[in-house]
Amino acid sequence: MDISAVNALPYEDFVNIFGNVVEKCPLITAAVWTRRPFTSFNALEAAINEFIDALPESGKEGILRCHPDLAGKHLHSGALTRESQEEQTRAGMDALSSAEASQMTRLNEEYKGRFGFPFVICARMNDKVTILHELSERCQNERAAERARGIGEVKKICRLRLQGLVLSDATNKL
Amino acid sequence: MDISAVNALPYEDFVNIFGNVVEKCPLITAAVWTRRPFTSFNALEAAINEFIDALPESGKEGILRCHPDLAGKHLHSGALTRESQEEQTRAGMDALSSAEASQMTRLNEEYKGRFGFPFVICARMNDKVTILHELSERCQNERAAERARGIGEVKKICRLRLQGLVLSDATNKL
Repeated sequence: MDISAVNALPYEDFVNIFGNVVEKCPLITAAVWTRRPFTSFNALEAAINEFIDALPESGKEGILRCHPDLAGKHLHSGALTRESQEEQTRAGMDALSSAEASQMTRLNEEYKGRFGFPFVICARMNDKVTILHELSERCQNERAAERARGIGEVKKICRLRLQGLVLSDATNKL
Repeated sequence: MDISAVNALPYEDFVNIFGNVVEKCPLITAAVWTRRPFTSFNALEAAINEFIDALPESGKEGILRCHPDLAGKHLHSGALTRESQEEQTRAGMDALSSAEASQMTRLNEEYKGRFGFPFVICARMNDKVTILHELSERCQNERAAERARGIGEVKKICRLRLQGLVLSDATNKL
């Protein structure tokens, strides 16, 4: 789909198609529809990022809290969104050794206990080694820094999900 | 559950239980968890309403766009949330005559075409006669007035859904 096709979508189709570019936050996509028409892929992405940036800090924490644990109980029970299931599987989260799985569970709990929101990282830009390393390192950060870092990861995830749905500007120019 | 039990919930349980008090907007509930502990049912409700009120106008429209049509295609296909299915059924939305169903469909489309978001009304405080009357009347309003009116209805729906989950303050005092 190119950006002109995106701009032609009624809000119901727009929310159906793009509602999960930010995990379990169709409110964001639905809000951004007000800003159409978008001049480009980048303009659509920017509108989403600007909406996120304008939320109060509690709202940014709310976005993080809508994300599942990496390699958490929902990965094996099939309770993840389709997008998250694919991303976690590609990053090897379903193929951890017993020791790795235990470490991931322990660090996820430590992270959530410390910050009150889950560890969020763009799984498609990492593998199990870098994810475990980042999780361990980031447990040491301050809450405000982690909130900002998590939101930065949410935006990376969003960009990749958008790229799976809309032709990016570079592609349009070919 | 009383308010002290609510305050003791980890964010994951809080979002699981209260994530749909605003239809398909778990982001709002997840954000409000930051504000705990809540001194009362009313304080919890107020925190949700304050979060909604602080959103930009596009965000309020986004909330409305997360709501299904009343007596729309999803009512019969089973694609509604549990809460919305119950509320619409209680209001008689699944038992419209053929003429009423046609009128509802026509007015829903007129409303969405005019405003870019769906007609939202607290079904549990209405029946099919008042819903059809309100829908017909509200199609004549201005967009800003309807946005505000729709958000007012969202808050009524939220209060009733909360009352189904948490003992209200009056009940606590008994």
